[in-house]
Amino acid sequence: MPNSTAAMLVIGDEILSGRTRDSNMNHLAKALTDAGIDLKQARVVSDDHDAIVAAVRDLSATYDDVFTSGGIGPTHDDITAEAVAAAFDTPVGIRADARALLQDHYDRMGTTLNDARLRMARIPEGADLIDNPVSVAPGFTLRNVHVMAGVPAVFEAMVASVVSKLAHGAPLISDNWRVMRGEGDVAEPLSRLADSFPALSIGSYPFQKNGIYGTNIVIRGQNADQVNAAMTQLKALFPA
Amino acid sequence: MPNSTAAMLVIGDEILSGRTRDSNMNHLAKALTDAGIDLKQARVVSDDHDAIVAAVRDLSATYDDVFTSGGIGPTHDDITAEAVAAAFDTPVGIRADARALLQDHYDRMGTTLNDARLRMARIPEGADLIDNPVSVAPGFTLRNVHVMAGVPAVFEAMVASVVSKLAHGAPLISDNWRVMRGEGDVAEPLSRLADSFPALSIGSYPFQKNGIYGTNIVIRGQNADQVNAAMTQLKALFPA
Repeated sequence: MPNSTAAMLVIGDEILSGRTRDSNMNHLAKALTDAGIDLKQARVVSDDHDAIVAAVRDLSATYDDVFTSGGIGPTHDDITAEAVAAAFDTPVGIRADARALLQDHYDRMGTTLNDARLRMARIPEGADLIDNPVSVAPGFTLRNVHVMAGVPAVFEAMVASVVSKLAHGAPLISDNWRVMRGEGDVAEPLSRLADSFPALSIGSYPFQKNGIYGTNIVIRGQNADQVNAAMTQLKALFPA
Repeated sequence: MPNSTAAMLVIGDEILSGRTRDSNMNHLAKALTDAGIDLKQARVVSDDHDAIVAAVRDLSATYDDVFTSGGIGPTHDDITAEAVAAAFDTPVGIRADARALLQDHYDRMGTTLNDARLRMARIPEGADLIDNPVSVAPGFTLRNVHVMAGVPAVFEAMVASVVSKLAHGAPLISDNWRVMRGEGDVAEPLSRLADSFPALSIGSYPFQKNGIYGTNIVIRGQNADQVNAAMTQLKALFPA
């Protein structure tokens, strides 16, 4: 069975202006790789209704699962819930179960559940809630789109919960070999090796540090025997 | 004159597998913001011909400029030049001026310009070269697509060269104010402030550190008087 495919959609002006450095993409990429799900594309769009709707429609039609990050807080620029609902022509409103979670949380904190905070209970019709063990306000899954918070601690907790529920493919196995030669010297033998193992992904990553330079070669695939066979040939091509 | 718009396309399996953390997006975002160019979207795709072609076509038709990062080295998985050429139905081959740059560089290094290294002279017909002051192998601009290296030092040098040549819009001015209250408390007044300044972008970014929590509020716009007026109102709403 081939692995299932996924895309990520990061929502936020602050990433595109350079004010904030996104860290959720790298976290999700590692979590999906470990779970045997192929992350095929990532996109960053601004806090713009039409941009979010267009990206959600495109990605959800193309990949098995879509993971979004950002735009589900209490402020006026948090518009992800409406936009994801609009992408599927689904009504969205304050939902009783989400409201109860927030009410209970703010009661315990002695804080008022005002209109702004209540925005975090906007959930599209038919969506399943995603648990938020960090700060309570839930994410949600609508069809194949998993809508999660942008705050890294919350995003990471939600990813753990969603990924554990998805059907797992074979996790990707990877191995690497360090060659003390430049990328231009290893490219030709490496290309022939890649041709003999079409099911594997063979990547090369040059490094240069303290006057020493070389290439890290990474072999990735779902079949451990094939990865091992390719590594054996690689080590024979470039002995330590 | 409205600012010109841009998109970024990051090309590389290593980003989507989580092996490498992209840093070029944040660098480009800051450089474009400083130059008054609006980065509207960023995408990450794998080293896959069809995925690169589709993304280049879509982004170059939608935005004024597209900046790509990655896939122009000497190895078999460096396929960006062919894919960008294919996106515009343009022939691609070893170009004499790019070859001469490489030949000269490797002659000085006492290294052979082998077939793999020669791949770095593949330039689509009609493209302009982008100077690489770090490691010589050039990038190129084809129509509105600027094709640059993934290695951060090279990417950054190429961005500086390309961005300085593009027509500049008004640079974005930004100012920020730290409020020692939660996002849920500032959301409503902030939303009214945003309504009174439709030309400005007003964002809020919660923080929590060592038991202290609050919200950073950032006001961005092209008109300094408007940014200042909004800041004055903001400080009146939330005095220090």
